[in-house]
Amino acid sequence: MAAHSIAAAYSTISAHASSLPCGRAPAQHIGFHQLTLLSSCDLRSLLLSHYAPKSSSSWCAVSIETLERNAASGQMLEKSVTLEQNVASGQLLEKCVNTIRFLAIDAVETAKSGHAGMPMGCAPMGHILYDEAFVMSGLLLQENELKQLRQWGSRTPGHPENFLTPGVEVTTGPLGQGIANAVGLALAERHLAARFNKPGSEIVDHYTYVILGDGCQMEGISNEACSLAGHWGLGKLIAFYDDNHITVDGDTGIAFTEDVNDRFEALGWHTIWVKNGNTGYDDIREAIKEAKAVTDRPTLIKVTTTIGFGSPNKANSYSAHGSPLGTKEVEATRHNLGWPYEPFFVPEDVKSHWSHHVPQGAALEADWNAKFAEYEKKYPEDAATLKIIISGELPADLVDVLPKYTQASPADATRNLSQQCLNALAKVLPGLLGGSADLASSNMTLLKMFGDFQRDTPEERNVRFGVREHGMGAICNGIAQHSPGLIPYCSTDVVFTDYMRAAMRISALSEAGVMYVMTHDSIGLGEDGPTHQPIEHLMSFRTMPNILMLRPADGNETAGAYKVAILNRKRPSVLALSRQELPHLPGTSFEGVGLGGYIISDNSTGNKPDLIVLSTGSELQIAVKAANELRREGKTVRVVSLVCWELFEEQSDEYKESVLPESVTARISIEAGCTLGWQKYVGAKGKIIGIDRFGASAPGGKIFKEYGITEESVITASRSL
Amino acid sequence: MAAHSIAAAYSTISAHASSLPCGRAPAQHIGFHQLTLLSSCDLRSLLLSHYAPKSSSSWCAVSIETLERNAASGQMLEKSVTLEQNVASGQLLEKCVNTIRFLAIDAVETAKSGHAGMPMGCAPMGHILYDEAFVMSGLLLQENELKQLRQWGSRTPGHPENFLTPGVEVTTGPLGQGIANAVGLALAERHLAARFNKPGSEIVDHYTYVILGDGCQMEGISNEACSLAGHWGLGKLIAFYDDNHITVDGDTGIAFTEDVNDRFEALGWHTIWVKNGNTGYDDIREAIKEAKAVTDRPTLIKVTTTIGFGSPNKANSYSAHGSPLGTKEVEATRHNLGWPYEPFFVPEDVKSHWSHHVPQGAALEADWNAKFAEYEKKYPEDAATLKIIISGELPADLVDVLPKYTQASPADATRNLSQQCLNALAKVLPGLLGGSADLASSNMTLLKMFGDFQRDTPEERNVRFGVREHGMGAICNGIAQHSPGLIPYCSTDVVFTDYMRAAMRISALSEAGVMYVMTHDSIGLGEDGPTHQPIEHLMSFRTMPNILMLRPADGNETAGAYKVAILNRKRPSVLALSRQELPHLPGTSFEGVGLGGYIISDNSTGNKPDLIVLSTGSELQIAVKAANELRREGKTVRVVSLVCWELFEEQSDEYKESVLPESVTARISIEAGCTLGWQKYVGAKGKIIGIDRFGASAPGGKIFKEYGITEESVITASRSL
Repeated sequence: MAAHSIAAAYSTISAHASSLPCGRAPAQHIGFHQLTLLSSCDLRSLLLSHYAPKSSSSWCAVSIETLERNAASGQMLEKSVTLEQNVASGQLLEKCVNTIRFLAIDAVETAKSGHAGMPMGCAPMGHILYDEAFVMSGLLLQENELKQLRQWGSRTPGHPENFLTPGVEVTTGPLGQGIANAVGLALAERHLAARFNKPGSEIVDHYTYVILGDGCQMEGISNEACSLAGHWGLGKLIAFYDDNHITVDGDTGIAFTEDVNDRFEALGWHTIWVKNGNTGYDDIREAIKEAKAVTDRPTLIKVTTTIGFGSPNKANSYSAHGSPLGTKEVEATRHNLGWPYEPFFVPEDVKSHWSHHVPQGAALEADWNAKFAEYEKKYPEDAATLKIIISGELPADLVDVLPKYTQASPADATRNLSQQCLNALAKVLPGLLGGSADLASSNMTLLKMFGDFQRDTPEERNVRFGVREHGMGAICNGIAQHSPGLIPYCSTDVVFTDYMRAAMRISALSEAGVMYVMTHDSIGLGEDGPTHQPIEHLMSFRTMPNILMLRPADGNETAGAYKVAILNRKRPSVLALSRQELPHLPGTSFEGVGLGGYIISDNSTGNKPDLIVLSTGSELQIAVKAANELRREGKTVRVVSLVCWELFEEQSDEYKESVLPESVTARISIEAGCTLGWQKYVGAKGKIIGIDRFGASAPGGKIFKEYGITEESVITASRSL
Repeated sequence: MAAHSIAAAYSTISAHASSLPCGRAPAQHIGFHQLTLLSSCDLRSLLLSHYAPKSSSSWCAVSIETLERNAASGQMLEKSVTLEQNVASGQLLEKCVNTIRFLAIDAVETAKSGHAGMPMGCAPMGHILYDEAFVMSGLLLQENELKQLRQWGSRTPGHPENFLTPGVEVTTGPLGQGIANAVGLALAERHLAARFNKPGSEIVDHYTYVILGDGCQMEGISNEACSLAGHWGLGKLIAFYDDNHITVDGDTGIAFTEDVNDRFEALGWHTIWVKNGNTGYDDIREAIKEAKAVTDRPTLIKVTTTIGFGSPNKANSYSAHGSPLGTKEVEATRHNLGWPYEPFFVPEDVKSHWSHHVPQGAALEADWNAKFAEYEKKYPEDAATLKIIISGELPADLVDVLPKYTQASPADATRNLSQQCLNALAKVLPGLLGGSADLASSNMTLLKMFGDFQRDTPEERNVRFGVREHGMGAICNGIAQHSPGLIPYCSTDVVFTDYMRAAMRISALSEAGVMYVMTHDSIGLGEDGPTHQPIEHLMSFRTMPNILMLRPADGNETAGAYKVAILNRKRPSVLALSRQELPHLPGTSFEGVGLGGYIISDNSTGNKPDLIVLSTGSELQIAVKAANELRREGKTVRVVSLVCWELFEEQSDEYKESVLPESVTARISIEAGCTLGWQKYVGAKGKIIGIDRFGASAPGGKIFKEYGITEESVITASRSL
């Protein structure tokens, strides 16, 4: 029952409707996310609060198109209704739209902060999208949760969070992320459809809708992602551009006068302009129809709207963007739009209109389930694979899958060892796909048994992102959130994580288990110089919540790092890998990586070494050499690989004490990165060998020497302890 | 004398020629940088090695156009020559171009790494730009320095660094930065011209040239910056797009099929396509002429070239991009292009041709100096101001300029106090200009006495960047590098530094004193939730070399932070400012900020407090309250404001010991950010109060309480010490 509300915010919002209803059984959410709103806005939650709150404990959304198709093929389900029957028109339509507007107004007013202006302007397109383009059913939020907008502990936070609110699949807020997530979602659909659909059995078949605003359009990330969407020809991606001419600082005329539709045409998109987004309902409907008819290109529908539509004094002004209208203006708006109701009121006829989504959704879900059962009978292997992608089920033990190394294995760069792991994993993980930002041959990320994911070969798994790091990260977030069994990885040089940090933070926040395969992880890369040499990057990811920074030292640690990365489906991983060759070290281990830090060698007894040397990655070999030298001199020395600080912190106090006994204060760390942060493990009396300046252009070995990242430095430091 | 070489790299390269030769006296470099190459490429240095190495200890570059204009006005200097006279043609032209190609080939071959392919393809456009569009003279590099390409200690590093190589004004390497820097340089010219030129006395008047590649075009930052350039109508910005269809991973067809020129038209640019960039010299010349004729829009000249042109087996292939050709292929290329010379050889007639730049440059410099002398007579005040911008001279004491506060001053958010400082500084710093990424009214960055820098009001100083953080940062780098007295600032919320981190790192590396005015610096911002709340950001900048992270606690600290930021012209500053109101605290001080860390209150004697509480920014008031409570209980407590860690580290050991005596191990820190890093000052026995998870959506005060960033937490921690 209940009203529907608009996917809101003047900024990124994205929705994708699916013809695949999520099943309630056997999985709670089969994984084909039917609706995704990528929103930086408060009002997204409005939408979620009004879908048949009592009918079901899960939810689904299906494309009306499917209904129509089913009807045409004679498979129309008894309870489903056609598009025409569902459409609100005339007064009821206005009433639905105004319900959305006032829910937005009232919620923001109650919260005393938030963004009402955009949903007021976008209510018509939002209404049509949610009422006509697809259907939702199932419990999302209770109506009264709207009154808790932006409050502690509520499921209606200031910006929608996928981990808090049912039905919100990706966390957004930062502008431009949403459209890029949508490209990832559309890519996922295209890829899975190409792999699993059979003639007459289009088991994967949904559109991806997204709403984005002027701010999103200005962000470079959106151009990156949309250039790729055009290149890939993602015909089922339909983007609504809320062209309201207002941003926080006022009229877009002060900073944004480009021709957006022309730009999108240049990017290979089909474009449409709905000039009256405030009341042009039929124009919006026609635009969606036209967009669907264009199958070889994504479509941008520019919808010109008025921010704060209906507010007599604040419409079309930045003052409607990010603040409550205020009691007086709310009253004036109620008067202006002829809305006599109390706050949060949803008229009965609006509720009644929307109630049709419940049986419709249930019917479509049953329809899809039946379709899948048939598919499973005909194509048991494909169905089994698809189920893995839907459920996210992982192989029982990755140990057997990942490569193993001995000291006799040829020395190699961890970037190469990484490629061996990726290729091994691809054989057992049907949802593993990804690629690099134009450095595949340098980051070593190609899956050798697959071709390129391209317009004409969407079933393939090597994704060519071009030099678009930020878009790449956000696209991978979209892929990861599409289905639990899709495991995206993406890659560039460690230093260029700076280009995509905002997307990586969203991975961490939204629990998207993207694998960031980052190579060229230190001054060791050599001649390309300081712009290419990470210094602060390792530590800067260690400071970020819910992300794993893994810096393996050799083959077994690289394999162990991949095991960790694969198992952590709700926590992204950054793998920092070397360009330069590294030896396989005695004592390193696959299992050790899972502990985050562990002893790789020790000649002491009773947990009382004279000295502990801590290191990671390419410097671990230096620690080993220095320790051997010091042992020859009669010292007892422990070498610890601190490959993943976050995991080490999660170990028991006992374990931590067994590796780093409190009583041993003679500690030295060596890592080719900044020193700040190492104090945590080295303590006040230890010595930290690191780099607190930018790198240099010269052969890698030369820089290591000049910067003192050497065995000699460790030995000298040990003398001073 | 000597050959010229091409501004190279398949990626960003930018050059801007000036009709303002830099003077040798009184300043070494007057500051109107005549030539800027924003290059990610090795071969940029080739160019620099071949400009009249012996004639002068500085250098200059002037637009030929100026010569022509002078000639027309009867002011032609005796020694100068016209464009026509300078132009190499026929065989000589080919020889000049091939000299560039082989210098590139030989240098990369000697270095055993590097990028020869792009300069081989771009040699024609590079030649015409450097030989005909402007003139350089003066010592740049010795010829033999080319042989040290990419070696330790050389002035020819793998990617050009402005702080290493004379004539290189901005550091590049990361793709897309250069075009954005160029927009900043063109903005600076436009702004200064509008402010200082008088009828008949165009004392500021130069073009900005930039070369960018496919990789740069794919990066979102370039779209951001170019959208602004189009919006601003920067008619003297001329960009050469090296359309060679090859990136690291192969043909651009795998990831980049948009229509670039159409996109630029949509962004408001004039576009031209030179279809034969390999040998179409006249087409390139015509394109430059046409670009100059279009004065109300920037121009993109797409020049289709062949990467590795001349190499029989590697031309038009990614194998020519980033590796030496190899001895055999070098020989084949020599044979193919008819180049009989030994490595690094510059034929005499090429040298001779290029030698005309020396007297020409000197003459033009003298010409400009004379023009400026005349300007100074007529407009002494303007000339004096312009000299400040050229020299970077700062007011004697900023103390008098910046606002002062007492405990009685009304509590205020540091973002508001920041605006008071900016407005105070604008009165005494003629080169202060900047703005926000669409959050001016929230970041509080407007200079109230000035209007907006816009197409028709370029003399104004409030820059409206739109929602384009990354472009904003890189544009500010360009502004900062244009003239030492231009002091750009830019602004967004702290959390969105993630969008612009790559540009900020370039500020730090290239010693660009950009001021990053960042607000909403903690969970204290409240309802907007975790996507908007920085956690790891403060620490992540503390880990970055050569950048100051300043987090002032109140009015006097904010003023002190601005003093530091202004004085640090070779080190960027990040100011982390609060959205929420903060009291002016007893003991904080303007001068204290300069020390990085200092005691704000203490009731102990003999440098032996029972407890030291360390804090920054908005949490300093919590530290003060907790300390007062503990003092009431009889403890001796010291409160330390650690407002800028980098500056504190630079103090003497004595000073540091006076603030944080080694013997006092009972220490507590409190900061609304990650704990990792604080171990450095708190030590193994202290307690760190911070936040190691993402934020939440609720009123700020509520989150502080729920997250334990409270007085009570400090008191509880003190009990456990």
